[in-house]
Amino acid sequence: MKQEKLTAEAIAENLHKMEGWVLSEDGVSIWKAFRFKSFVEAFGFMSESALAAEKFGHHPEWFNVYNKVDVTLTTHDSGGLTELDFKLAARMDRAAAGRMPDHLK
Amino acid sequence: MKQEKLTAEAIAENLHKMEGWVLSEDGVSIWKAFRFKSFVEAFGFMSESALAAEKFGHHPEWFNVYNKVDVTLTTHDSGGLTELDFKLAARMDRAAAGRMPDHLK
Repeated sequence: MKQEKLTAEAIAENLHKMEGWVLSEDGVSIWKAFRFKSFVEAFGFMSESALAAEKFGHHPEWFNVYNKVDVTLTTHDSGGLTELDFKLAARMDRAAAGRMPDHLK
Repeated sequence: MKQEKLTAEAIAENLHKMEGWVLSEDGVSIWKAFRFKSFVEAFGFMSESALAAEKFGHHPEWFNVYNKVDVTLTTHDSGGLTELDFKLAARMDRAAAGRMPDHLK
């Protein structure tokens, strides 16, 4: 089932409730830079996120090098942001929360 | 211990033995595009590679979206390519081998 594309107002409302997520200039994706203590924590976060992504049937675009994970979320089929993106974003924030260095929490 | 940077000859010799790895224009890194059947296979490959990377103490730079994993390897401390990069590259090829769609093997 194709997800409904969110309005600019709905996107702003969702972003307001979250931390660190940035809307792309074209408004079709959100981005966040996650930073961890080491590769083990970063990949632990990726593993937990991957399981959630597979369950949701919605996957991130992500780049990892050592302790850094840059995540981009969008719903290609809908040509923009949908509830699924914010659901996955919130889940990833939860996966990261226990693994963040204290000064980045 | 800092790894010794490989000579252009040694790099060419290593690349000759492998498939799909491309030397960057500046000669300091190698790159390969891995393609799988689905996210599950792609992330399975990443998990196996992550365990190897952690064991080697040498980590990839990688980008994943759904069934695609683009990998860049370099040894920052040495300012170029070292034996470690080719060791990890060979290990990742092995991790991918069982997960590749037949037409991409």
